[in-house]
Amino acid sequence: MPAGFFAVGGTAGIKVSGKPDLALVVADRPCTAAGVFTQNKLPGAHVTICKKHLKRGRARAILCNSGCANDATGEQGLKNAIQCCRWVAEQVGGIGAKLDPHEVLPASTGVIGPQLPMQKMRRGIAELAGRLKRGPAADEAAARAIMTTDLVPKTAVRRVRLFGKTVTVAGMAKGSGMIAPNMATMLVFVTTDAVIEAVPLQAALRAAVAVSFNRISVDFHTSPSDTVLVLASGAAGHAPIAKASGGAFGGFRGALTEVCRDLAYQIIKDGEGATKVFRVRVRGAKSEVDADAIGRSVVNSPLVKTAVHGGDPNWGRIVTAAANAPARLDPRKLSLRIGSERGGVVVFLHGQPVETNRQRQRALERLMKAKEVVFELNLGIGSAEVEWLGCDLSRQYIAINADYTT
Amino acid sequence: MPAGFFAVGGTAGIKVSGKPDLALVVADRPCTAAGVFTQNKLPGAHVTICKKHLKRGRARAILCNSGCANDATGEQGLKNAIQCCRWVAEQVGGIGAKLDPHEVLPASTGVIGPQLPMQKMRRGIAELAGRLKRGPAADEAAARAIMTTDLVPKTAVRRVRLFGKTVTVAGMAKGSGMIAPNMATMLVFVTTDAVIEAVPLQAALRAAVAVSFNRISVDFHTSPSDTVLVLASGAAGHAPIAKASGGAFGGFRGALTEVCRDLAYQIIKDGEGATKVFRVRVRGAKSEVDADAIGRSVVNSPLVKTAVHGGDPNWGRIVTAAANAPARLDPRKLSLRIGSERGGVVVFLHGQPVETNRQRQRALERLMKAKEVVFELNLGIGSAEVEWLGCDLSRQYIAINADYTT
Repeated sequence: MPAGFFAVGGTAGIKVSGKPDLALVVADRPCTAAGVFTQNKLPGAHVTICKKHLKRGRARAILCNSGCANDATGEQGLKNAIQCCRWVAEQVGGIGAKLDPHEVLPASTGVIGPQLPMQKMRRGIAELAGRLKRGPAADEAAARAIMTTDLVPKTAVRRVRLFGKTVTVAGMAKGSGMIAPNMATMLVFVTTDAVIEAVPLQAALRAAVAVSFNRISVDFHTSPSDTVLVLASGAAGHAPIAKASGGAFGGFRGALTEVCRDLAYQIIKDGEGATKVFRVRVRGAKSEVDADAIGRSVVNSPLVKTAVHGGDPNWGRIVTAAANAPARLDPRKLSLRIGSERGGVVVFLHGQPVETNRQRQRALERLMKAKEVVFELNLGIGSAEVEWLGCDLSRQYIAINADYTT
Repeated sequence: MPAGFFAVGGTAGIKVSGKPDLALVVADRPCTAAGVFTQNKLPGAHVTICKKHLKRGRARAILCNSGCANDATGEQGLKNAIQCCRWVAEQVGGIGAKLDPHEVLPASTGVIGPQLPMQKMRRGIAELAGRLKRGPAADEAAARAIMTTDLVPKTAVRRVRLFGKTVTVAGMAKGSGMIAPNMATMLVFVTTDAVIEAVPLQAALRAAVAVSFNRISVDFHTSPSDTVLVLASGAAGHAPIAKASGGAFGGFRGALTEVCRDLAYQIIKDGEGATKVFRVRVRGAKSEVDADAIGRSVVNSPLVKTAVHGGDPNWGRIVTAAANAPARLDPRKLSLRIGSERGGVVVFLHGQPVETNRQRQRALERLMKAKEVVFELNLGIGSAEVEWLGCDLSRQYIAINADYTT
């Protein structure tokens, strides 16, 4: 994390497994802050409170628990989230000025329905507040404490020069199942020392999220907890970015986008039960909205996901999934190439199947069996293009979601 | 099947397994006919030809092969479908008047991409045309020959009195995977001896399909072959139904709807890998469109489907899947009951989780472990209601779709 940020992760006893389940990130000064949240119509209590606390575009701390989502918990859930913010403000001392409860952004992930175990939250917050630290070990402990079914912690860092100063953008993410972000995704926290006002910060975050977390899907079930937060401390000391335009804004947005894309890739790679990643490149669409709808339709098809799992070059599933999207598509212009970053095999060209032979079939099977597969769909009717990321659907996904309450 | 219809099923050698793969249904006189087809933008060749042949609202025969979908096969696929209709017209003799190729409705299902094996089709049609028969054995042979990953053949019959005469409506269906019908579904063929003109026949079919096949989903991947056809021979000899209104039209539409619902249920029960069926009853919606979107969102959520598979009363997945739908929903009014046809347990009431205890939890677990589960979502903001049918997601679905080309 950039200078000026402290982190800690620990165990409050919320998870039955006894694994880490509480994380705290605190800045040594007030930050500008922005957030992007789930479009689910039953948002978690923490989403409602975060939105309220972000109204002034400022914040100093993020509190996150795993093991209990505080979703679908009604009035009591809102009261509990507010109480947790109060405890953080009371307990965090010794790092810069006094904290106001409104400067705390709460986040929760885990089982939907149960209320937060408030005794455990109070004790956990008190314990963690005394252990806030700088450095990679503390950052990783925080990244671990927000995990649920994730197998690995997910972090990303980019540096960019703005007005002659080095600016750091660092992010951590959790997310493995219930991943089909819609304007946001499962918990992502970004910190930066950039000097940037709240309005351009929010604009940069929206732009970054649109091409990263909003273009991945594990299981097309948008979570009611989806949250991406960014805190900008200004510690880099460059001339401030006051508008959502110009070269410095572009440079910052670029670094933020790379961090978000990196984390989005890590989420898909660690998708529940995933063994493989596939990219759907949609080209030649009439509009980005159309290209987007087609990418989403392909990454969400269980038949495409199982074909990727089995390494089966069953391309009919890909073109028909594309043709199911609510988007303009001329079947006589549609083409599909199955490949890797270094090329591939065209299987469908301008609406006609390409005749195959044993050599082509072997090449196709080899490409489909790789750990990463690229499906390039060319619609041939425009110039818009997007890339979506998906993962395969395996027996392990069923085991994780049928055999345990997650 | 009603009087005047002949059927046959057999093996043309299209399937590598050697299982039955060719079916023929022929009427002894010209019938009024109607069809509803896939909305996929890359429709199979047979869909294009069926639509063309149905323009005059008349037909006499249905030819269906399994093992090869003739989808995504370009110009050659269209030529092959037309040639098959010609062969049927040439070969079917001795049953009423001479057949015109335009009176033949072709249908295909199986792997997408390959061209039809035309030698096998020609020989198969010639062989089957000589074996056309009346009676349940022939009907079942036809129903078996259209199966792909289906485990059981699917048929349904209803009788209704119209103008003092008994009218029979009989249907056969195939469908197990790639089932998310959109204005149609995987191959369904209905025959009836009703006396009904083409316009009211099409109206009755659209109405029946809307509340049956369009409210089921196995895996939310709409097939490019989805087809529902109905042939009405008029053999029942009652006063003709000439308009899409009135008591006799209502009676016929009711019987047709019951046949379609029965077949839709059979398709879900035999969904790929399915071990359980669940019903999503959406009540109190602002509009039927809203209720429909919510039902679709719940039956398609892999997290709901795996919870059903595991018998896990993880109701947070159900309410959040509902809240992901593009529909009006007030989280403070939403309620959910999990149960069976004989009642159940309310778990979420007016936006608040209902407190649980050991007894309630045990009752819930018992309900969720049943072979059929009913989720009743009450939105509390209107009076529209719909019912969707879904099936669980199991390891067997992955095995079927990852380990074999289907």
